[in-house]
Formats: sequence, structure tokens, C-alpha cells
Amino acid sequence: MTRLDDLPIRDDLRGATPYGAPQRPVRIQLNVNENTHPVPEAVVAHVTAAAERAVRGVNRYPDREFTELREHLASYLSAAEPADPVTPDQVWAANGSNEVIQHMLQAFGGPGRRMLGFPPTYSMHSIIAAGTGTEWITAERDADFRISPETVRSAIERAQPDIVVLCAPNNPTGTPLGLETIEAAYAATTGILLVDEAYAEFMPEGHRSALSLLPGRPRLAVSRTMSKAFAFAGARLGYLAADPALIDALRLVRLPYHLSAITQAAAVAALQQAPTMLATVDAIRTQRDRLLAELPALGYAPHDSWANFVLFGGVDDPAATFHYLLERDILIRDVGLAGHLRVTAGTEAETSEFLEVLGRMPR
Amino acid sequence: MTRLDDLPIRDDLRGATPYGAPQRPVRIQLNVNENTHPVPEAVVAHVTAAAERAVRGVNRYPDREFTELREHLASYLSAAEPADPVTPDQVWAANGSNEVIQHMLQAFGGPGRRMLGFPPTYSMHSIIAAGTGTEWITAERDADFRISPETVRSAIERAQPDIVVLCAPNNPTGTPLGLETIEAAYAATTGILLVDEAYAEFMPEGHRSALSLLPGRPRLAVSRTMSKAFAFAGARLGYLAADPALIDALRLVRLPYHLSAITQAAAVAALQQAPTMLATVDAIRTQRDRLLAELPALGYAPHDSWANFVLFGGVDDPAATFHYLLERDILIRDVGLAGHLRVTAGTEAETSEFLEVLGRMPR
Repeated sequence: MTRLDDLPIRDDLRGATPYGAPQRPVRIQLNVNENTHPVPEAVVAHVTAAAERAVRGVNRYPDREFTELREHLASYLSAAEPADPVTPDQVWAANGSNEVIQHMLQAFGGPGRRMLGFPPTYSMHSIIAAGTGTEWITAERDADFRISPETVRSAIERAQPDIVVLCAPNNPTGTPLGLETIEAAYAATTGILLVDEAYAEFMPEGHRSALSLLPGRPRLAVSRTMSKAFAFAGARLGYLAADPALIDALRLVRLPYHLSAITQAAAVAALQQAPTMLATVDAIRTQRDRLLAELPALGYAPHDSWANFVLFGGVDDPAATFHYLLERDILIRDVGLAGHLRVTAGTEAETSEFLEVLGRMPR
Repeated sequence: MTRLDDLPIRDDLRGATPYGAPQRPVRIQLNVNENTHPVPEAVVAHVTAAAERAVRGVNRYPDREFTELREHLASYLSAAEPADPVTPDQVWAANGSNEVIQHMLQAFGGPGRRMLGFPPTYSMHSIIAAGTGTEWITAERDADFRISPETVRSAIERAQPDIVVLCAPNNPTGTPLGLETIEAAYAATTGILLVDEAYAEFMPEGHRSALSLLPGRPRLAVSRTMSKAFAFAGARLGYLAADPALIDALRLVRLPYHLSAITQAAAVAALQQAPTMLATVDAIRTQRDRLLAELPALGYAPHDSWANFVLFGGVDDPAATFHYLLERDILIRDVGLAGHLRVTAGTEAETSEFLEVLGRMPR
């Protein structure tokens, strides 16, 4: 039998293991920050009808420019930030925000270039950097995983990176990132600033997104996803807003027809149902705030979260706690931070059961 | 207004233009080798029902291992080559064969490595090489775009590439590639041999695919697509068969959840309908053979084709002929070969109209 090491694989991949959280069939899955509420029947019907129309023409290649989808994404973003509307030529999309980020690094990173990030942060940033030959360099966060304008400015001045990536709110910590820090980062760099807003819809009502900083900042890109608030993780649709010139750069590196006709149609249909798709956001915020309020009573130390999950410290043995929960059909995430675990804010029933089982655990 | 050149884009992308054939709304589209027959209603219904089930669970991430899809692809390939069945752990898939090829180059190519191809061939091979930092090197074909075992062997011995890519049958020429040439290429290289069989289903009845060479050849990979014979271009599903160890290498470079739940479900449903999906292959071969038989009578010199298209020489002014046809609502492809144009074998009516209009053109 041939083994992987017998093949002429790249040296930097030898001994590597594939990235990905364990996929296990447990009853309560709170490990990958999905929207755990069921997809409403009206949405299923509307998206399915759109998919059917796409299937009818599936013998043809899809619209390479995903024109209709870009229009709908622009409308959605403009409704969220009406003071600074986004036009369709400012929008890019791909199969998940991971692919959007990969396109960014293929265009602006790559061999001989460096991307600066602030761990602990979304682990795919460094993995996609490695996959595109971009050097991944890091700087320290402030206390409680925050980043002040001064911290970001001095890190950029020291490192002189080609790309800076900031996650707002941050994953896996859930902690907020202020607009003033994003402004400071942009002002300090001559490179690209990528703000990953995968969890933006869970921010407090009225808090402005980095989208509001786009006017006059052509080196700023704000990535989003339909996987979280939109309850569309299975459809793989990530997107990004930026200056039209930056979008043109992404056209140079995308594989032609990278977005299938069915993906385009399904995403357009879901965006048409945005109010229904997003109806659970308030309920999820309520459960997140409940986790923040109730975990201290159980002896844990949650970090402030603007996302749909909570990172909590004070865990003596994260692996033991993880397995205690798993044995009781609850899957959460060990993100590799000493003394910490991460849990998604699920439905009210899921959150209650998680808190109850955790509270019962002998310590 | 910001221009692309004002941004800190990679130097090797400056001045580049996005790849892709013109997408134009003309009545007869014979430019990108699609299956131009309508998708049968039974298939639309079956695929839509599968998509609906996937949409119902779309709030969850898809199966990262696309287990069911790999099983169906393995069954499909095994039915085509029953003497050498393919198992699910020998199968990989991605959003179009372009992404499959990109995964191959990320795992086995990249900076400091070289891929050898034989132009004129599928233009995405060199584009994906560039996109992954793999050096693209070329060797000459024999007369009439063929490649003999001796030619492939001496080219490999001269170039010592890390990857050899052969397109069988070749695009854009349509010309066959013998199994003996593939065997010779494998024997001559210590690197990876990638055989791109996008058009394999259009080969003459009874001709064996490179799949039959997989046993005992762990450095051989055979890529396929559902875009052509399967009439599934809009769904973006490319795949590959190889040794399980080689598949493991691709797991290291794929983005997690790269295949959406809807894509997986739609492709499985289409594979379940394989006989219906492939019912048009004979009709398309008939039209291809008709193009090969009738183009000489119009004064053109077609090259032998085992694919669903025909490259024909003897065109005095390819741009003029292209536009003459386009003005009459027929879109074919100028592939940049002096004196040549390429036309997809469409339905009987489309092929008749193409031949008739071409025959009427003043020369």
C-alpha cells in the first residue's frame, strides 16, 4: 500500500493533517457556530423553487460574473448600512468566506509577501496564508483579547506587512473590535486591510460595521458570510465588499465559473427572504447574553462576546470537560486555548441543556 | 476613482485580464463545449427533490468528506471500467475540474516546482500553474497534435518535471491520446502524472480510459468533469480518481467544506440518473462525426476528434469567420490557433444551421 509520504508531495505539507473540526452525529451540536434553528419552511420552498429553475439550465455554464447575486448582496449590505450604500461593482463572492480570503491572498499576498494577524483569531487565516505561500506574522493583543488603536498601529509599523487581517468581532474569542482600531490600522498601512466580519449580524443593535469605513479607503476589504446569522452554512456563500478596483483584482485570480448556477440561485433566493432568514438573530443574541450571564454562576469566566458564541475561561481541564459534555450528546469546541472552551449560542432549549449539564459536572 | 494599478496587487498580475470565453446571449452557443441538449424533466425533478432535502438542513455545514458523493462517483467510474473498479477512497471532487487541478498543484506543484504540458492544450492548465506559483514548461506535439510514447518520454527526460499533465482527448484540438503514451509518460517520470479526461465519455465505444492504468500506479491521477457529457456544467462538479494516498494529499490543501451540501446532493441525484443524463452522448458523437465528414466538403480541414467538439483548419481569417457566424446568432470559439476555429457538436438542428451558415459565407 502506498503511503502519503511515498508520494512527491510538497515538503511543507509532509506530516500535516487536514484542517477541520470533528464532524460527529450528536444531538446538540454547538461546536462550529452554526445557526442551530431549523430553516423555515417558507425559505425551503422559495430556495428550492430557485434551485429548480437553475437545474433546468444546468447543462450551461453559470454566469461567471454572478450579476444577480452581486446585486442582491449589495442591496442587503446597503440595507444594513444605509448611510454608506454598497454598489454591485463593490461586491465579490465565492464558495464560503474561506475562498474569498484565498482570492484576496492570491491577489495581494503570495510568495515574498506577508500577512499580519493577531492570534488567537480565526485559524483559517494562517492556513490560507500557508496555502498561498504568504508569510504569516503575528502580533500580541491587549488584555482580554482586545486590540487598541495604538496596539494595531505599532504592530503594523514594526512589521510593515502587505496585508493586515482583523476579525470583527473576533473568533474564537467573540471579543469586539472597535471601528477606531480599524481606522487606525488602515491609516498605518500602505498595504491591504482585510476585516473579517463573519459574525457582524450579531453585533449590538446600532453598532456600525467596517462597511461604513469603505468610502475613501480603496485598500480596505470587508468579508462576510451567509453561514452564520443567515443560517446558510451548507450552501457555502461568502462575500466581500471593497472598492471596485479591488474587486477587479479578485477577477484575475478566481477560477472561471467558480460559483455554480445553483449556488447563485439559492443565495439570491435566501437574500430575498432576508428578514425571515435573520429572524432568529435576536433569539441567538439572547442566548449568548444568557451564557455570558450564567456561566460565572457556574464558576467559569466568559469573555465579552459580540458573536453567536462564547469563549469561557476557568476550565481546569478543557479535554475532560469537552468529553464530559460529548458523552451527554453535547458537542462544543476545544480551540486550543489553555483553560478555555468555546460554545455556540444555540436555541433556548440547547443552551439550557448545555448550562444544566455543565453545572452538573463534578469539579 | 481608484484604478487596479493603484492597489498593491502582486507584480505578476499587473496588466493581466480575467480568463474566460465571452458570455453572450446568442441563440446557438457552440463555444464552450457544453451539452446543448435540454436537461430532461425527470432529471430536473429528481435533482430538485435532492436539492430540497439539502436546503432543509442548510443551516449546518456540509459533510466535509462528501462521503455519499464519493460513493456515487466511484460507482459511476467502476461501471465505465468494470475490469478495474474504483473505490470511494480513490475519489476526490471539487467545484469544477479546475478546482480539482488547483488542489493537485497546491499539493504537488507550487513554488520551486514545474509542470510540463503539451500546447495547444486546455488553457486553464497553465493559468492554474501560474496561480499556484508552479512553473509551466512546455514541449512540442507530433504532427496533427498527436503525442507518441517516444515524444512524451524524451520530453520528460529533458525537462524532469514535478508534474506532467496530458489531456485525453485533448482540448482544444479534440485529438486522441493513446493509453500507450500515458503508460510511457508514467514510466518516464518520478513525479505526478495528471491525465485530464474531461471529454472521456465521447471517446469511441470500447476505448479504455486512463482509469484502467490506475492499479499499481500511485503517482497517476485521472480527472473528470460532470460539465460535458453529463450536461451539468452549471452545477460545477469536477472529480478525480487516484491512489487513496494521493487523495489524502488533496485533503491537506482543500478549504474545509469546499463542496456545498446542495452541490453534493445535486451531483448524487444526477449520478443516480446517469443513463438519462448520458442519453445524448451518442447523438452528440453523431453530430461530431458529421462535422468531421462535412467540413471538408466546405473546404475546411477538421482534426480528428474524440471529444464533443471539432477543431478545423483552413480558415483564412478566423476573426472574420467568427464574426460572420456571430452576426447570424451562432457563437463558436477562436482558440488563438492560426487558421483555426473550434465548434461544439450541438444538437442536430444546431449543427445543421452551423454548417449551413458556414457554407453560405462568401470566401
